[in-house]
Amino acid sequence: MAEFKMTPWEVNGKIDYTILERQFGIKQINEDLLERIKIQAHELHYMFRRNIFFGHRELNWILDEYEKGNPFYLYTGRAPSGNMTLGHLIPFLLTKWLQEKFDVEIYIQIPDEEKFLSKENIRDINKQRELCYDNILDILALGFNPKKTKIFLDTEYASVLYKQACRVAKHITFSTVKDAFGMKNETNIGLIFYTSMQAVPAFLKSIEVGHNVPCLIPLAVDQDVHFRVARDVIGKLGYYKPAILHGKFLPGLDGSTKMSSSNPNNAIYLTDTHEEVIKKVNKAVTGQQATAELQKKYGGDPEKCMICQYYKYLFEPDDKKLEAIFEAERTGTILAGEHKKDLAEKINRFLDEHNKKKKEIKDKLDDYIIRA
Amino acid sequence: MAEFKMTPWEVNGKIDYTILERQFGIKQINEDLLERIKIQAHELHYMFRRNIFFGHRELNWILDEYEKGNPFYLYTGRAPSGNMTLGHLIPFLLTKWLQEKFDVEIYIQIPDEEKFLSKENIRDINKQRELCYDNILDILALGFNPKKTKIFLDTEYASVLYKQACRVAKHITFSTVKDAFGMKNETNIGLIFYTSMQAVPAFLKSIEVGHNVPCLIPLAVDQDVHFRVARDVIGKLGYYKPAILHGKFLPGLDGSTKMSSSNPNNAIYLTDTHEEVIKKVNKAVTGQQATAELQKKYGGDPEKCMICQYYKYLFEPDDKKLEAIFEAERTGTILAGEHKKDLAEKINRFLDEHNKKKKEIKDKLDDYIIRA
Repeated sequence: MAEFKMTPWEVNGKIDYTILERQFGIKQINEDLLERIKIQAHELHYMFRRNIFFGHRELNWILDEYEKGNPFYLYTGRAPSGNMTLGHLIPFLLTKWLQEKFDVEIYIQIPDEEKFLSKENIRDINKQRELCYDNILDILALGFNPKKTKIFLDTEYASVLYKQACRVAKHITFSTVKDAFGMKNETNIGLIFYTSMQAVPAFLKSIEVGHNVPCLIPLAVDQDVHFRVARDVIGKLGYYKPAILHGKFLPGLDGSTKMSSSNPNNAIYLTDTHEEVIKKVNKAVTGQQATAELQKKYGGDPEKCMICQYYKYLFEPDDKKLEAIFEAERTGTILAGEHKKDLAEKINRFLDEHNKKKKEIKDKLDDYIIRA
Repeated sequence: MAEFKMTPWEVNGKIDYTILERQFGIKQINEDLLERIKIQAHELHYMFRRNIFFGHRELNWILDEYEKGNPFYLYTGRAPSGNMTLGHLIPFLLTKWLQEKFDVEIYIQIPDEEKFLSKENIRDINKQRELCYDNILDILALGFNPKKTKIFLDTEYASVLYKQACRVAKHITFSTVKDAFGMKNETNIGLIFYTSMQAVPAFLKSIEVGHNVPCLIPLAVDQDVHFRVARDVIGKLGYYKPAILHGKFLPGLDGSTKMSSSNPNNAIYLTDTHEEVIKKVNKAVTGQQATAELQKKYGGDPEKCMICQYYKYLFEPDDKKLEAIFEAERTGTILAGEHKKDLAEKINRFLDEHNKKKKEIKDKLDDYIIRA
């Protein structure tokens, strides 16, 4: 067994993505699939090229259907527990690209109850609402198509979702969630039920239109377990099992597996000031040698350098430019100080632009939000 | 231990109501409380006089508050699994009387998901809706005040209920529902969660008006377990714990503890024809002697005679007339045939009247139903 723990509510230790593939039946996105995406999209997102989205379930079927003229819809989501970090953007950026290239609809679920139910210290579900709406602005600032994007809070859309969640729930026992999520007798009954709510948007479109529509779910890999349970149930209910795209986590600034919003020094928030970003980036693990002299002589390891990794995951979509950055790290031609300064500037430019878009989207919320 | 099993989903064996009092802390409604109800209501419903509503939790507090000018609201409900029987009317009849005499509001919950989740053979939650709306007509035909009555289906009102249910659920563990409801590892996660939904209307009014309002819940005693669990939680959330009024079950025609809608020969449905009623009543257990001669000589036992019991529970509100019926049974001056004929006629007159009112209420549903 690998020495890591991963549930939707806790990621500990260094995740071995190859073990995830072996243990849970997640398939690698191979060259053939990448080629098929490229043919349809006329390009390949850098997250595909760089194996940041590394795994899938039934992506081949999604492409089969698409090629036959039967388009899919996308479903992803975010359960807010605080302000969003750069890491949270990764699945949304890919989802947005997929919407654009394949011209398809998206359902974005904001389960405002999830963190309330899973975290002892979140005591007021009503306060989650404000946070959710702020997170929604961050998500929509990425530029989703208002004509093809529906976003909703679980509690506000429950008059649609709850009935469907009950249909799912009837097929899931406590034993199943105990095994799949590590739930205990002491787990609260809201969290026990919750996975049923997360399953619903994966077949909701089929209910709305009255016939089966393929669904593709880009997600961070810790969310896969919900659909390992739900895919079979959704099949039993007579709908297509949703296909999944699995993304890696943006590493923490200290080199840990996941940029975690519960560790403020390890994470860059979309709300951070320029000064905070500079300060945090300055503390990032670089994998460089102990002194400038040694670094110039021996070079560093870009795989261990978080500066390089942040370029790879978010801030340098151009592969040639990224390779130049990696090469400079390897050969010691760039030193940590300059490296960090460049990245901090890039991040701050990105955040400025992001927050401008976030303000602009505020008045357009009604184009996206659905309630019932 | 008593040799009966009682959960909201199963009642087996002969219920010993005194054991319920000892085991679950249900208090008897004593003379003092009856007197206090009578002072406020200017009369006493026969179900109080006859100990059909036999138990309570904190009814004294409800009356204290009412006497101080702080009125309560009522909350009751029904989870449809089929057409309604005469037995189902009992809590609603008392609730209607309480509304009228105390001039208070009522919330009526129709948990359309409950039987879907608890019964294997109910496979389509959408079909529950039609059944629910028919049950609603039966309930409203009893004459609730349209200005003070709100009735809702859980799935249709979930955008209000689900968030509040999550607040409840966070305080209830699987261990708790395991102990209280006898749930198992094989129980589905929808049913595990369900009790949280049933708790919500007991404090919903307080949320709506922004301050605490006492809540009184008349129910059949098998539902008490939901509130044994929920009362503490509701207290922790900062609301008044709801008070409870416990009713007995209308016995089955065969003398069993509960008229059960899952046993058609044992139950009279509100939809039964005159002929069906006559046929069923003719088969009822009467507790009379083996022959007319013996009956005339020794008489029968009204406590064991279902004809007498149906007069007591539903069809003879006048105590003197009821006593005359009981006396005739005891002394053998009435024989089974005549006895049954009289009751069947009374029931059929009641059903005719009921179905007339049911038709009339159909156009007025919007005065009562709330959705969100």
